[in-house]
Amino acid sequence: MTSENVLEDRVASETVGKKVLIVYAHQEPRSFNGALKDVAVAELSQQGCSVTVSDLYALNFEPRATGKDITGSLSNPGFFNYGVETHEAYKKRSLSSDIIEEQKKLQEADLVIFQFPLYWFSVPAVLKGWMDRVLCQGFAFDFPGSYDDGLLKGKLAILSLTTAGTASMYSKTGVNGDFRYFLWPLQHGTLHFCGFKVLAPQISFGPETASEEERERMVAAWAQRLKTLWEEEPIDCSPSWYFGQ
Amino acid sequence: MTSENVLEDRVASETVGKKVLIVYAHQEPRSFNGALKDVAVAELSQQGCSVTVSDLYALNFEPRATGKDITGSLSNPGFFNYGVETHEAYKKRSLSSDIIEEQKKLQEADLVIFQFPLYWFSVPAVLKGWMDRVLCQGFAFDFPGSYDDGLLKGKLAILSLTTAGTASMYSKTGVNGDFRYFLWPLQHGTLHFCGFKVLAPQISFGPETASEEERERMVAAWAQRLKTLWEEEPIDCSPSWYFGQ
Repeated sequence: MTSENVLEDRVASETVGKKVLIVYAHQEPRSFNGALKDVAVAELSQQGCSVTVSDLYALNFEPRATGKDITGSLSNPGFFNYGVETHEAYKKRSLSSDIIEEQKKLQEADLVIFQFPLYWFSVPAVLKGWMDRVLCQGFAFDFPGSYDDGLLKGKLAILSLTTAGTASMYSKTGVNGDFRYFLWPLQHGTLHFCGFKVLAPQISFGPETASEEERERMVAAWAQRLKTLWEEEPIDCSPSWYFGQ
Repeated sequence: MTSENVLEDRVASETVGKKVLIVYAHQEPRSFNGALKDVAVAELSQQGCSVTVSDLYALNFEPRATGKDITGSLSNPGFFNYGVETHEAYKKRSLSSDIIEEQKKLQEADLVIFQFPLYWFSVPAVLKGWMDRVLCQGFAFDFPGSYDDGLLKGKLAILSLTTAGTASMYSKTGVNGDFRYFLWPLQHGTLHFCGFKVLAPQISFGPETASEEERERMVAAWAQRLKTLWEEEPIDCSPSWYFGQ
């Protein structure tokens, strides 16, 4: 038995029964994003994890934050305040069923993987809508109950994303600036805010312009990383990580 | 006539006939965001501008980027690539009518105002969907044709947003970090990418926890700024503006 086998066996024994939620936002099952999602399902299942996928386009997931998200009566029907109404509805268990369903999956998860292509330096709208609607006050955060005390503390999160541009375009001197710059609203403003410990992002740069061999190598690198993901230390989610020299 | 009157008259004469598009994302017409939108319509109309509002929730604007955005046949029906298909559909004039409608408004506009409440350090999903779907390749950018050469060059853009947190929470030493950090994906990665000149953001901090007098003062400050907005120099949209000391 090689030392690598020993490590993998040790990791596997610790990960049996762990719950993983993959929030996946791509329209095409045969896409590169689809391949990254599939390999994550396969690898984590093989480790003994219980893996759930929220396939947002397949679900036709609603991104708009509206009054339809509250099934009961509004606390102030004459003046609609989305944050106030969803906070109240969460407490009264009167959020719409699609939000409740996602909150259940999220509540049970030890690790959440967000798999998406970068759209305008951020998540596609369907995934932004998942964040806007699912991560409501009372469930994901409260006051007090944000950042290190966020209500989802104890959970791990990781962004696994693909870009159109190359790695050099997303460097400090590249046209798009350092990739860490665009991660701030997602990793700090959203995930850290809700209490997640954030693992370093998995960024697959420019798969559309890469060769088939390079694409295969990127998928294999993700599968390989997942073997010991549970051992990783989260990033230090402070401004210096994002904007430091 | 005071010198202020003279200035306003001069500005007004230069702004007659200017076209403004307000992309507005709030569910409640009587909200603070609604008041900021209304005062902008009133002030800019009074200047002689032609003002159009895209009220995204009222339009039930579709945020999801899907195959429904292409009305003709797909160039590759067996493997859906949203960027490729919408680029092709733009050239063949076969994008869905709601996208075409927004592109027409945008094409005509000299100035675009985005009015929205900050959701997770970014725009609400309905507005993210407007960006994902309307700003397609061939229309808003191309290669070459990005950043200073973006296809929407010659136009001005400004983000007018409200926050839940206070200004001190959005300072370099505040829990949310400097407000400029979260502007990067929106101002640089989206607006600058498409060629817009970006004016300094109008941020109304914490209207929900402010007094009625403070809210009125914030609305009045926006109205006052709009009187001479056309005279403003755009920001220097470089990393140092966002992340410098």
